[in-house]
Amino acid sequence: MSIKNAIFYGLLIFIPISIAAELLNWGSVVVFMTAAIAILPLAAWMGTATEEIAVVVGPTIGGLLNATFGNATELIIALAALNAGLIEVVKASLTGSIIGNLLLVMGLSMFLGGLRYKEQEFQPVVARMNASSMNLAVIALLLPTAMNYTSPGVSFVTMQNLSVAVAIVLIGVYALTLLFSMRTHAYLYDVGVAEEDLQVMAESNLVPEHPTEKTDLRLWIGVLLVATLLVAVESELLVATLEEATSKLGLTALFTGVILLPIVGNAAEHATAVTVAMKNKMDLAVSVAVGSSLQIALFVAPVLVLAGWWLGKPMDLDFNPFELVAVAVAVLITNSISSDGKSNWLEGTLLLAAYVILGLAFYFHPESAV
Amino acid sequence: MSIKNAIFYGLLIFIPISIAAELLNWGSVVVFMTAAIAILPLAAWMGTATEEIAVVVGPTIGGLLNATFGNATELIIALAALNAGLIEVVKASLTGSIIGNLLLVMGLSMFLGGLRYKEQEFQPVVARMNASSMNLAVIALLLPTAMNYTSPGVSFVTMQNLSVAVAIVLIGVYALTLLFSMRTHAYLYDVGVAEEDLQVMAESNLVPEHPTEKTDLRLWIGVLLVATLLVAVESELLVATLEEATSKLGLTALFTGVILLPIVGNAAEHATAVTVAMKNKMDLAVSVAVGSSLQIALFVAPVLVLAGWWLGKPMDLDFNPFELVAVAVAVLITNSISSDGKSNWLEGTLLLAAYVILGLAFYFHPESAV
Amino acid sequence: MSIKNAIFYGLLIFIPISIAAELLNWGSVVVFMTAAIAILPLAAWMGTATEEIAVVVGPTIGGLLNATFGNATELIIALAALNAGLIEVVKASLTGSIIGNLLLVMGLSMFLGGLRYKEQEFQPVVARMNASSMNLAVIALLLPTAMNYTSPGVSFVTMQNLSVAVAIVLIGVYALTLLFSMRTHAYLYDVGVAEEDLQVMAESNLVPEHPTEKTDLRLWIGVLLVATLLVAVESELLVATLEEATSKLGLTALFTGVILLPIVGNAAEHATAVTVAMKNKMDLAVSVAVGSSLQIALFVAPVLVLAGWWLGKPMDLDFNPFELVAVAVAVLITNSISSDGKSNWLEGTLLLAAYVILGLAFYFHPESAV
Repeated sequence: MSIKNAIFYGLLIFIPISIAAELLNWGSVVVFMTAAIAILPLAAWMGTATEEIAVVVGPTIGGLLNATFGNATELIIALAALNAGLIEVVKASLTGSIIGNLLLVMGLSMFLGGLRYKEQEFQPVVARMNASSMNLAVIALLLPTAMNYTSPGVSFVTMQNLSVAVAIVLIGVYALTLLFSMRTHAYLYDVGVAEEDLQVMAESNLVPEHPTEKTDLRLWIGVLLVATLLVAVESELLVATLEEATSKLGLTALFTGVILLPIVGNAAEHATAVTVAMKNKMDLAVSVAVGSSLQIALFVAPVLVLAGWWLGKPMDLDFNPFELVAVAVAVLITNSISSDGKSNWLEGTLLLAAYVILGLAFYFHPESAV
Repeated sequence: MSIKNAIFYGLLIFIPISIAAELLNWGSVVVFMTAAIAILPLAAWMGTATEEIAVVVGPTIGGLLNATFGNATELIIALAALNAGLIEVVKASLTGSIIGNLLLVMGLSMFLGGLRYKEQEFQPVVARMNASSMNLAVIALLLPTAMNYTSPGVSFVTMQNLSVAVAIVLIGVYALTLLFSMRTHAYLYDVGVAEEDLQVMAESNLVPEHPTEKTDLRLWIGVLLVATLLVAVESELLVATLEEATSKLGLTALFTGVILLPIVGNAAEHATAVTVAMKNKMDLAVSVAVGSSLQIALFVAPVLVLAGWWLGKPMDLDFNPFELVAVAVAVLITNSISSDGKSNWLEGTLLLAAYVILGLAFYFHPESAV
Repeated sequence: MSIKNAIFYGLLIFIPISIAAELLNWGSVVVFMTAAIAILPLAAWMGTATEEIAVVVGPTIGGLLNATFGNATELIIALAALNAGLIEVVKASLTGSIIGNLLLVMGLSMFLGGLRYKEQEFQPVVARMNASSMNLAVIALLLPTAMNYTSPGVSFVTMQNLSVAVAIVLIGVYALTLLFSMRTHAYLYDVGVAEEDLQVMAESNLVPEHPTEKTDLRLWIGVLLVATLLVAVESELLVATLEEATSKLGLTALFTGVILLPIVGNAAEHATAVTVAMKNKMDLAVSVAVGSSLQIALFVAPVLVLAGWWLGKPMDLDFNPFELVAVAVAVLITNSISSDGKSNWLEGTLLLAAYVILGLAFYFHPESAV
């Protein structure tokens, strides 16, 4: 595990580098890139700390903790961007996170797992429940866009009201899915999540090993707080330099939001899902990828709508219509591939190809939002 | 059953009240609301009379009777509205009936049934055949809209010709689905429809009990005729006051057509489906909800297109594009939830949440049709 | 088999007739129609020759041969049309081929097969893999259209670059699907393809019988070359008279491309699929129909994009938006019907009804492309 350690500590060095770059005026591109890299190990640390605390405080509070902090990195970056008024970038990063989790994370998992194992299986029951929830979430998120696109002339206030109402319904649905999976129908989700899986899960992130027997609650709360604080700091650097840096790199705000930011924000999920897939735990890999998308759609996005409303930076759910197409496409192909509870390398390739083609389309997209 | 009786007779009182409201000029809002309420028990009576007559005349003619009179209430209201020139309202009520049956009726059935039973099952074979027919019907109904939306400049006459042609194809498909379910593949549909189910079905509507042993054909034909006549009378009151009443209530014609009218027209199906679901007959509940949508799409809608053409009130199939989105969304999420032949309370909640979100969108929709 | 022989040789006579019609100026309509008919037996001959050569050269090279020459007729017609600058017709014939294979060929197979056998079965595993590949292919092909439609103002050069990039990804995916089905997961596809099936397959095309024991490689290569050459000749006649002939017949270029050309180009697949379906080999019928669509989407379309770029007749993937709707509809309803691995006459009817309704819509479509 020394390679893992080396990578982890190597990445941590980018925290001081990014701060130095900002203070010493090394230019927006350098600040942007070093801040992006610095976030990677911090996100991994936040994830590990959340899981460790969850183990100590027991399944119920632990489950809620995971459900709210699971995508904390993305939420922090998005809040920083929202506060800076980069509303189109925030929206783009939401659709990008959904697309990235469903196509890139699941695709890489199925492809790399499929190179080792001819056929991999996962639970179709949970996959189908998740697919239905995902369909609802995506429909709800994109309905305001569809309405505005098919019936131009919707006023800004109406769109804002509709978005807030949809956000409240989605948070309610999220609470009910937690109730379902943790209380009334927990047995559906328990199948196959053995001690062994938790061990595999624990080993599969970037954070250096630590004795899991005597978990020190105060230590992990400290880690969580420090990591959260540093992610916030780095998010501010990232957001402050985003527009200048990406335009210097020849990228549109749309491409940055849909492709670049989600790769940074979801790096921890990527690492975990791919590692467990290569250990033939496709069940875990799929639930990390789909679970993370669901959390974005049912929790992070509505929270951002409500936060924007509260912060006086109103963010509605009126996305670029092509984002609607992209998310619909991602959900459709993921449903089609995951519905049978089996995967192989070609199915992974199809998901990756869909991601590449969407990436190309966003790269060539003329929209230069913000 | 005295509560049921009390409700039933209580609602019947609204028939004279609505007529009095009209004659004594109590205002359009009062007439509209009392006429809407008066239709509820009449629709229940029509349904019961149709079923009783169907039992006497034997399976074939009875099946055809159910297939043509099953949505008679909606057909009568729609014909009255069509005759009054409220063409956009008629179209909206068609999409609203499909959405309402798939999301509200099926959602409530799965939710309330799921509160009593952890997991409920229904036949996936029939569910899949119905889903395929539904997909075709929805596609056919919405293709003219899609054509007009993607290629503006389609002439009124072309749209009318295309709509009539599509209507004829759909009625042909409806006839073939009846041939399939009643003759060539009747065995697929028989499974699970036992005597016991018919009993449950008979008990599950609002009409007060009656001795089912000695069914008097002439009595029930009389009931059917009187109920049909009264529904027509009340439909005229409803339609005549619709525009004024809804605008006084601050509602658009689109919202009235998509949300309000279908709740009135489908109340009988709501009551039946929910009651049988709570008796763990999810098979029956799903087939009532999906069967009713199918009948709307494959029979009621085409008949209205042809009737409009014949009445000189040409009604084409060019819907509001957002109605297309809404129906597509309803079909997609219903397919996703019903494809595995199992249901639970969360799946019901997802359908209801989809209905609420669509209802919000139609409420905020700027279109004030007609 | 004398009827088959009579039909085959009867159709061959249209080769000299079409050439005479051109030389003797019998008018564009006559040339167009006789050339179209003349292509039918030639396409059947090309198919048979390809299969015979494939048997001799062994499974790997044979498989590649089938994979590249399987839709040679369509490719030749499309290249002739591309070279004549009829770019919109070429695009329309691509979407028409996909729609025709999925709805008309599969629909007729299920309908006619279903009249003989109450229920027919085919392998759901392969059906699902094919559906997933088809979903990806269709999404990729139509993404540029969706982008241009939702975000007007994409420059011609950008659209061309995006189309070439997508074409390269699709050819890569096609190569990988061949690797999957012929090498790494060949066992999935072997199930059920017995000697008997090959015999049924061999008997089910229009070409007169020939002794399959002693296949003469040189003979069949000769047949392939002559048939290919003649198809090319006839394609030139077809394309040269297409615009004048169809406008005299009152048809738009869009209707010709979407409905007429694919029926000519896919006649061999039609005959094969329907014949094997009526022999209760629904597995083969479905794989012919879906396999042919897949080849169009993953191989023929990308090759035409690259060929157009190379020939200086740039063809991008910006289709008419209504073609996007039509293909999406065809894929959706095919997925819905084929996902359970069973078919009956009503399912065939639903596919055919979808084809008829799309045909009506394209007939009434105002677009008069080119």
